[in-house]
Amino acid sequence: MRRVIFIILDGLGDRPITDLGYKTPLQTALKPNIDMLASEGSVGLVHPISPGVPPGSDSAHLSYFGYDPNIENPGRGSLEALGYGIKIEEGTIAFRVNFATLSGDVIIDRRAGRIESEYASQLADEVNMKIGTIDGFKFKLINTLDHRGILLVSGSKVSSEITDTDPHVTGVPPLKCKPLEAASNPENAIRTAEAINKYLKHVKDVLHKSEVNKNRIIKGKPPANIIIIRGAGVKPSLESFHERWGLKAACIAGGPLYKGVAAALGMDIVNVPGATGRVNSNFNSKFKYAARIVREYDFVFVHIKATDIASHDMKPLLKVELIEKIDRGIEIINNISSDDVLIVLTGDHSTSCITGMHTGDPVPILFHGGVRVDEVKSFDEVSAIMGGLGFIRGLDIMPLVLDAADRAEEYGIKTSSKPRMYRMYYNR
Amino acid sequence: MRRVIFIILDGLGDRPITDLGYKTPLQTALKPNIDMLASEGSVGLVHPISPGVPPGSDSAHLSYFGYDPNIENPGRGSLEALGYGIKIEEGTIAFRVNFATLSGDVIIDRRAGRIESEYASQLADEVNMKIGTIDGFKFKLINTLDHRGILLVSGSKVSSEITDTDPHVTGVPPLKCKPLEAASNPENAIRTAEAINKYLKHVKDVLHKSEVNKNRIIKGKPPANIIIIRGAGVKPSLESFHERWGLKAACIAGGPLYKGVAAALGMDIVNVPGATGRVNSNFNSKFKYAARIVREYDFVFVHIKATDIASHDMKPLLKVELIEKIDRGIEIINNISSDDVLIVLTGDHSTSCITGMHTGDPVPILFHGGVRVDEVKSFDEVSAIMGGLGFIRGLDIMPLVLDAADRAEEYGIKTSSKPRMYRMYYNR
Repeated sequence: MRRVIFIILDGLGDRPITDLGYKTPLQTALKPNIDMLASEGSVGLVHPISPGVPPGSDSAHLSYFGYDPNIENPGRGSLEALGYGIKIEEGTIAFRVNFATLSGDVIIDRRAGRIESEYASQLADEVNMKIGTIDGFKFKLINTLDHRGILLVSGSKVSSEITDTDPHVTGVPPLKCKPLEAASNPENAIRTAEAINKYLKHVKDVLHKSEVNKNRIIKGKPPANIIIIRGAGVKPSLESFHERWGLKAACIAGGPLYKGVAAALGMDIVNVPGATGRVNSNFNSKFKYAARIVREYDFVFVHIKATDIASHDMKPLLKVELIEKIDRGIEIINNISSDDVLIVLTGDHSTSCITGMHTGDPVPILFHGGVRVDEVKSFDEVSAIMGGLGFIRGLDIMPLVLDAADRAEEYGIKTSSKPRMYRMYYNR
Repeated sequence: MRRVIFIILDGLGDRPITDLGYKTPLQTALKPNIDMLASEGSVGLVHPISPGVPPGSDSAHLSYFGYDPNIENPGRGSLEALGYGIKIEEGTIAFRVNFATLSGDVIIDRRAGRIESEYASQLADEVNMKIGTIDGFKFKLINTLDHRGILLVSGSKVSSEITDTDPHVTGVPPLKCKPLEAASNPENAIRTAEAINKYLKHVKDVLHKSEVNKNRIIKGKPPANIIIIRGAGVKPSLESFHERWGLKAACIAGGPLYKGVAAALGMDIVNVPGATGRVNSNFNSKFKYAARIVREYDFVFVHIKATDIASHDMKPLLKVELIEKIDRGIEIINNISSDDVLIVLTGDHSTSCITGMHTGDPVPILFHGGVRVDEVKSFDEVSAIMGGLGFIRGLDIMPLVLDAADRAEEYGIKTSSKPRMYRMYYNR
């Protein structure tokens, strides 16, 4: 029986880049340690959701941990809130918020020049001071990091079955919040959406008049004159990872969303010095801690955001550098005995350095430690085609992990009165 | 963002043929242009429905366009009718009809010697003149092309939940039309089937007495002395392709079924000189038009029937020749910039030149334009095993197309109150 170190390099997969001789960053990077793991283990390609579908990071992670994102996703807003330590209660919904810049009637910057927390938190305070309750719904705006925030909406009739106002692109107006067509309680969804639209209009007025923005304009900086919201989420009520898979789990991550997913699944969050969730994060520190705490935990989830940031910023050379830097950190992991520990390394999705967007391309994945050894010697999007894991889906990962770690229960055995959760995935 | 040219070579896949040195026609053909596309792109194998299931062309096409044929197929009869410009209204069902030859009580020719339209249309007129209404159901027989026709059955209690009388093989009697066991309205299904059986008996009498058939017998030709019917279809009410996928689409095809599927999905039908839906079709003309109209459309569906006809006729050498001729036409497509256009090339199913029947073997598929480049240099059933697309299913194709064309929406984003239709396929 093995313990597991489960490493996700966010947005790892990519498409061929002309400047890299029509290779992907992963094909270009020198990464002897990762390639060593690949050559001693089994490699494959994972469709996080299903072929061709570009996943959000929340859905991809849930899927990898064995939670069907189609039916078990409490919503990005509440997962991200949880990552900042903001607990969502019944009767409250949470949105991920961006402070953004409107010019005329179109959004010209979805991040308001990446306004610093110092100013964004002042703006949030002003908004909360001037707007509290609308149509029986209570609103609270929380600035988290830089241009990012969380919006809490509370009320006995609140509904999360509503759309985003963030259009996810610039050059267009913000969207109206609308009830989902398939809302289970359409009346509550309509009421909530209407109150939110009123609130966002008020917020715009408050932000317009704020001294903070007047000063930004004087300094030639884009004003944070609107907020755009997305990913309405409710209080997470997911079965814990331990209950579902029998594994005591810990999370080492910098980014709040990933901590939030882990917290929602009841994993312990282990804070590591230098883990920032940014490109400057201390990867070695994360791997050192992982190697240490895997003695106490059955499953250690290590998340590195940097590769995704380089991709969203369309910087393939930076992505190559980061992969190489991560590879040097992997040496720490490679020294762990494969008799004791199963290492899984993959990405949560592909992010294209050409478009800066998530894509539906499958992501290379490797298993190392006791598993079959295929003929793949290098870890990249093309070499992985020949791998022993074949093409799998996100929801296949946990059954594969349990199996490779010699922890799987034989199908059909009824030692527990409760069905093992992964049975629901067998017959997809 | 790319536009898409989507080429279907009907019945493209095959099995090894002894006379071809135990290779398939696709493995045998010299096809430098198609191989160039394969070597610059991603290749895979598609199960049109699921492994081992031989699809009908209607189901395969629906599946490829992202419509689940299990729940979204209005029926081959009405699709084919639509391809001839025959609109089906509520209260009417449509069948595909063959004029056939009965000897004793068994069918000896399912196409009555491929009787020409000149005579078959006379027979249809005679039938319509002598038989109009039976048990409250109105019947109309339309000859379309050669031995082919459409039968319309109308009535307030008409049901399409009934079986074919075409046994799909020779040497056996025509089948009785029966209600489906799972019919939602068994009473209507029983009534409809009974009226149809009476009608077909009358038709047999009329055809038997026709001068047309007497003349055929004198000339030693097989008489068209019965009709056999299949694929009861209702008025199509499918969400349009544009609504489902956001793509403005056009169809270039000769065969009526393919035009009918495209019309049912709201695609524009572009008629091209020399496109016959037969082995003599002008392939170059189709590709020239595709290259031209892809500037006005997001998605151009090009269908070539010839490869399937050669397979049904069990002529592997002809199939090789046709693939080589098509390949010369593909050169026109190859000259389009891969920055602007995604090319997808595949077959709707495999058809065996040995048995002359559709098989459930997966079909090679290639994507060219911005996608990952795998190590496959040749486009055939065996080389494709190593391709970067892996093994996919028909319903995966549209999500993969949107993704490769940089038109996919990230999973979980709620910018619209209506779910994107492909979400229904995520968890298969």
